[in-house]
Order: sequence, then structure tokens, then C-alpha cells
Amino acid sequence: MSKSFDIAVIGATGTVGATLVQLLEERDFPLANLHLLASSESAGQSLPFRGKNVRVRTVEEFDFSQVRLAFFAASEQVTRVHAPRAQAAGCSLIDLSGALPVSQAPRVVPEANAQILKTLQAPYQLTSPSASAAALAVVLAPLQALLTLRRVGVTACLAVSSQGREGVADLARQTTELLNMRPLETRFFDRQIAFNLLAQVGQADESGYTVVERRLSTELKQVLALPELKVAATCVQAPVFFGDSLSVSLECAAEVDLAAVRAALEGAPGVELVEADDYPTAVGDAVGQDVVYVGRVRAGLDDAAELNLWIASDNVRKGAALNAAQLGELLIKHYL
Amino acid sequence: MSKSFDIAVIGATGTVGATLVQLLEERDFPLANLHLLASSESAGQSLPFRGKNVRVRTVEEFDFSQVRLAFFAASEQVTRVHAPRAQAAGCSLIDLSGALPVSQAPRVVPEANAQILKTLQAPYQLTSPSASAAALAVVLAPLQALLTLRRVGVTACLAVSSQGREGVADLARQTTELLNMRPLETRFFDRQIAFNLLAQVGQADESGYTVVERRLSTELKQVLALPELKVAATCVQAPVFFGDSLSVSLECAAEVDLAAVRAALEGAPGVELVEADDYPTAVGDAVGQDVVYVGRVRAGLDDAAELNLWIASDNVRKGAALNAAQLGELLIKHYL
Ligand SMILES: NC(=O)c1ccc[n+]([C@@H]2O[C@H](COP(=O)([O-])OP(=O)(O)OC[C@H]3O[C@@H](n4cnc5c(N)ncnc54)[C@H](OP(=O)(O)O)[C@@H]3O)[C@@H](O)[C@H]2O)c1
Ligand SMILES: NC(=O)c1ccc[n+]([C@@H]2O[C@H](COP(=O)([O-])OP(=O)(O)OC[C@H]3O[C@@H](n4cnc5c(N)ncnc54)[C@H](OP(=O)(O)O)[C@@H]3O)[C@@H](O)[C@H]2O)c1
Repeated sequence: MSKSFDIAVIGATGTVGATLVQLLEERDFPLANLHLLASSESAGQSLPFRGKNVRVRTVEEFDFSQVRLAFFAASEQVTRVHAPRAQAAGCSLIDLSGALPVSQAPRVVPEANAQILKTLQAPYQLTSPSASAAALAVVLAPLQALLTLRRVGVTACLAVSSQGREGVADLARQTTELLNMRPLETRFFDRQIAFNLLAQVGQADESGYTVVERRLSTELKQVLALPELKVAATCVQAPVFFGDSLSVSLECAAEVDLAAVRAALEGAPGVELVEADDYPTAVGDAVGQDVVYVGRVRAGLDDAAELNLWIASDNVRKGAALNAAQLGELLIKHYL
Repeated sequence: MSKSFDIAVIGATGTVGATLVQLLEERDFPLANLHLLASSESAGQSLPFRGKNVRVRTVEEFDFSQVRLAFFAASEQVTRVHAPRAQAAGCSLIDLSGALPVSQAPRVVPEANAQILKTLQAPYQLTSPSASAAALAVVLAPLQALLTLRRVGVTACLAVSSQGREGVADLARQTTELLNMRPLETRFFDRQIAFNLLAQVGQADESGYTVVERRLSTELKQVLALPELKVAATCVQAPVFFGDSLSVSLECAAEVDLAAVRAALEGAPGVELVEADDYPTAVGDAVGQDVVYVGRVRAGLDDAAELNLWIASDNVRKGAALNAAQLGELLIKHYL
């Protein structure tokens, strides 16, 4: 039995939304009609899908009873306003903005906690976690049978595309200005991002943490079902267009068996292990790929219960659009 | 009583050496004649010093009995070959290459372990530690009275200038080629460094660690006199010309008193603390400055005995030339 429904993508003209639309076509996603929604700024534009041009409309005028599933790939604010309308219309949704509380829309990474879907009811509300939480969960999930994780230390160097179209445009502009010896004028980023690293992404709260760091910590614990895990998270803005890089240090309850770790990662779904004589990079390996790359797998210098890793992942694909598409496929296959 | 001697700088035409020569002038370093040495490639060139042009000569032909102190700012190989000649001539030396074992030439950061000089004898042999170890030591030394450090987790994002002139030239070349839509040709870096992060700097050994990571760990423990400290070190190559950025996570024996940490950093020599509503960056703050910047000072999200920091430092100044100049000043003032 093959089911297919009408589906909506909100934020279809954005970095994540446009990739999601491509993936829905590439993966032959089981859908009949696709509704593309955005703000009034790009309403009227068309995007290609299955050989036709689909007109973009505003989300405000959209009647959610027309679709069984909606992907929310716009801002938190858009999700906050329109998710209740979708729910009232009986439409299930997959949110990418992180606007909904974990209790209402659990974070799901199919390779790690697909089983949580069984505990939910229609209309379904799921969240695709932040890009760095998704990448980390894909790599740590297959290690959970081997290791008792005590603490995850992670420095996530995020691509400017994690800030959407404006982040990408601003890195390009700044780099060109600097190479042309023009004085730097700041726009989207409030200081020089070209040839620099910014110590934080967004505003910090009174305890010093940013939203992306809190999301990374909360979402990782939820997806791995490890509420007691200690997470030390730092999210940094890197002058990289696409692809997140994560430097990860794990503290485990006992000595780490490196051969077993490598074997588990070799066989893990969604993971590509890079051997010790090489290492993965965001741009060279991960971008444009469905898998999350992991390399530099090594025990601690001073602690045999420590495991260090480097993860490179496409923030727009597995970090967002691909993970959401996979969640949609699961919902349609088993639940809708 | 003011003493001044003749002094030599080996590698005077390089990234570190040229900055060191500038600093010797800026700081009015107590020296009579300055001998500038390099390879035969740049012998014959002149560099300005105190209003005169000083001719560069080859280190091979240099007679070390002419000087009381020599700075070794060329390769490890140059130190290995010529340090014994300096020593035989009774010349003290400050090495920047890391070629000499800790037992022979201890790592010294004046703000942290200047007292070690008292235990040595002429001719003195000191090492200025790697740039990231020096930056970290400057920040951690003033916290040692407050905190019992158990583990230091550090991801050090190194500037391409940490690879010398060739690293700087290659990032500039790659960036220009990519912005001009030309296919990337690799030269000094064996893959794309522009708009990317490389997971390691140099070759890894069979346990997966690179020389810079092992140096960071060994040198930090030696400078802080904490042989039992656990260090989890990852050194990454960032597409940044000048300035290292360190994401640091400390595990302490007891709950961290943040106010006391901030007060200790406020008053610490060589440290500039950036308050919580702002953060330092390598390019915007540290480069060209003598102080090491620290910010994002925050307790763990899940652990009150965890302290997280961000450090931005000029790898060529405090990371090398400045620290070496300070060591030279100490030697001349108290020991030579
Ligand atoms: N980029 C990533 O790596 C990443 C990863 C994980 C999650 N996310 C999340 O995914 C969401 C989209 O991010 P993005 O990177 O794709 O951003 P983006 O490139 O800036 O695109 C934003 C999208 O939202 C739409 N939009 C903005 N305001 C709207 C409104 N009032 N009503 C309807 N649509 C509106 C825009 O439409 P117009 O064309 O009309 O302006 C555009 O389609 C964000 O919540 C982000 O946090 C992003
Ligand atoms: N850059 C940093 O951030 C940093 C920080 C800490 C420590 N260090 C260390 O400092 C040292 C110098 O680094 P750098 O960044 O200045 O490198 P660099 O820019 O590549 O300069 C290398 C210098 O070494 C000289 N040299 C090379 N081969 C020589 C030989 N056979 N005999 C005499 N001189 C020779 C070069 O002279 P020519 O002009 O004749 O080639 C040049 O002056 C290295 O050991 C490095 O590890 C560097």
C-alpha cells in the first residue's frame, strides 16, 4: 500500500526550505500536491518541483486543512503563530525552528530515537533538532551500547548558513571587501566574520549561554534519552559558508575500546567513518552528502576513559532538511 | 646598573623573527648589537632596526661567541643543529621551535613560572612554549590559587600564520581563487582551507595526535607545574590569518566561584577580561596586542564545578615573539 498526501513547506524560499523541496523530489517523497509557502516578500515567485513550477504563496492565507503534513522551515515566530492553526486543522507538522517546547514537539533523529513516534498521537508534532544536536546524535547513538557517557564536551563551529541567506551573503560581502582592501562595514554580523571566528552565535543570557548552546544541550539529552548527561557546549561562528564542524570530547564511565568504537561507527546508519590516516572536513566531505562524517577518533592523552572525535556535517541537509524529510517519511509510512 | 649585550635572532626574516625584531626595538630591549640570521635564501637582505639597516647573514657562518643571547625562531631542524654550537660558545638561548626536550630547555611563560629560571645555570636554555600553550597558561595561572584543576579540555583554532609565511600566503591565494570561481589547486595546505576548517594541523601519530596537540598538553602541564592534570587537546586549522582562538572547558575539584574567577582575571598580568555582554575575537581584539583576551566566562550548564572560557590571542606576539622577548628581558635583568 502506498500512501501519499498533500504537503506544505513553510519557508520554501529559504536556505533550508529550498533544500527540503529538492530533497522531496530527489527522494521521491510520497506526496501528491506540494504547497510552497513563505512571506509576502516572495509570494508570487515559483520554484521547480517535479518538472513543474510551483507558485509560492503566503502562509497567512493558507488553509491547513488542505494538507496532512506541514514542514515549518521559517522563523520561530512563524511556527509560534501558525503551528496552532495547523494543529486545529488536524495537520501534522515537523518544525525546524525549535519554537515548540520539547514536551509538545519532541526532538527526533531517526537514527537515534525513531521509537518515540509510537508514544505520540495525531496530529503529530515533531521537531527536527538543531543541526549540531542532530549531527552529534547520529554519531553518539550507535556508541550508546558500548559506552556509558558521563559528559559530552563540544565546540561546534557553525557555518554562516546556519544564520540563513543573510549569513551567507554577509560572509561573501565581507570577504570581498577585505580582499579589495576596503574598510570593513558591518551589516548582518556585528563584527568581522571574514578571516575571524566569533566566540558566540547570537545573544547570551545572564548565565552566559546562547540559545543554540542551550538547544544543543537539551536536544542531545532528549534524543539520546540521557537526562543525566553533562553537556559542555560552546557554539562558535566560523567563516565557512556551508558545513558544521564539531570538536567533541567524551568522558565515559570506563576505558574506551577504540576498535569496538570504530567498528560501531563503521556499521552505523547515517555515519561515514574516516580512517586515522585521514580526516574529514565540512567543505571537502560533508557538504552535499546525506551522511555525517566522523574522524580523528582517539582515546584521551591522559585518560583511557576519554574519547575524542571530530564531526563534519552538512548543516542544511542532515542538520535540517534531510532529517525533516526522513521524519516525514517515517510519519507517512507508519503513522499518518 | 644597566646591562646590554650583543644578541642574535635566527629566523629574523620569518613571521615570528620579524615581529621579534620589531618588539626588541619597541620595548627598548637592552642590547648593543643585533645580529640577524636566516638561511642563504635571504642572506644579504636588510631589516630596519633602530633607524639603521641591519644586514641578514646565514646562521651557518655565525660565530656564537659574539653574542650572549640568541633567539631561535627558525625551524626545529635549525635549533637542533645550531643550539649545541651556541651552547658550546657559552651563549644562552631562547628557543621558539620546540626542538629541545623539556628537561634541557624548560618551557617558560613569565606570568606563570618565571621562578623556574632560578633553578637553571648559564648558559641558559629556555623554550617559549607553543602559542596556544602560552595563551592558556597566561589565563590559567592566575586561577590556580582559586581552583583545583582536574581536566582542561581545549579546542584551539589556529591561525594559518602558525604555519609561517607559507600558511598566510596559501590562505590568501586559495580565497582569491575561490572568489574568482577558479578551481582550487592545492599547494601548502593539502586541501581547501579557505572557508573551511581542517580537523588537524600536521600529521597525526599512531595514537591519532599531532605534534602541536602533544606540545600543548605537555607544555601546559609543565608551565603550570601540574603533572597530573588531564588535558584533552584538539588543534584545528582555521581560515584566519592571525590570532588563535581557544574554546576551553575546565573541570575543577569543587564548585566554581564565578565572581572570584572574574576578579582574579581582572587583576592578572597579561590578561584582558571581556565582560559578559561582549566577547573577544582574535582579529577584532587580540591581534597586535600584548595581552591575551578572555571572555565567555561561564559555569557549566550541568556542572557547577565546570568553567568555560574563550581565549583570543596573537599567536605571533604573546604566542611567540613577545613571550620570547619577555624571557630575554628576565634573563638579562637577573641572570646574565
Ligand atoms: N540554516 C540552517 O543550517 C538551519 C539548520 C537547522 C534549522 N534551521 C532553522 O530553519 C529555519 C529556516 O532557516 P533558513 O536558514 O532556511 O533561513 P533563511 O535562509 O533566512 O530563510 C527563511 C525562510 O523563512 C521565510 N519567512 C521569513 N519570514 C516569514 C514570514 N513572516 N512568513 C512566512 N515565511 C517567512 C522566508 O521567506 P521569504 O523568502 O518570503 O523571506 C524564507 O523562506 C529557521 O528557523 C532556522 O533556525 C536552519
Ligand atoms: N608563527 C607562529 O605563530 C609561531 C608561534 C610559536 C612558535 N613558532 C615557531 O617559530 C619558528 C618560526 O616560525 P615562523 O612562523 O616565523 O616561520 P616562517 O615565517 O616560515 O619563517 C621561517 C624563518 O626561518 C628561517 N629559516 C628557514 N630555514 C632556515 C635555515 N636552514 N637556516 C636559517 N634560517 C632558516 C627563514 O629564513 P629565510 O628567509 O632565509 O627562509 C625564516 O626567517 C618555528 O619553529 C615555529 O614553529 C611560530
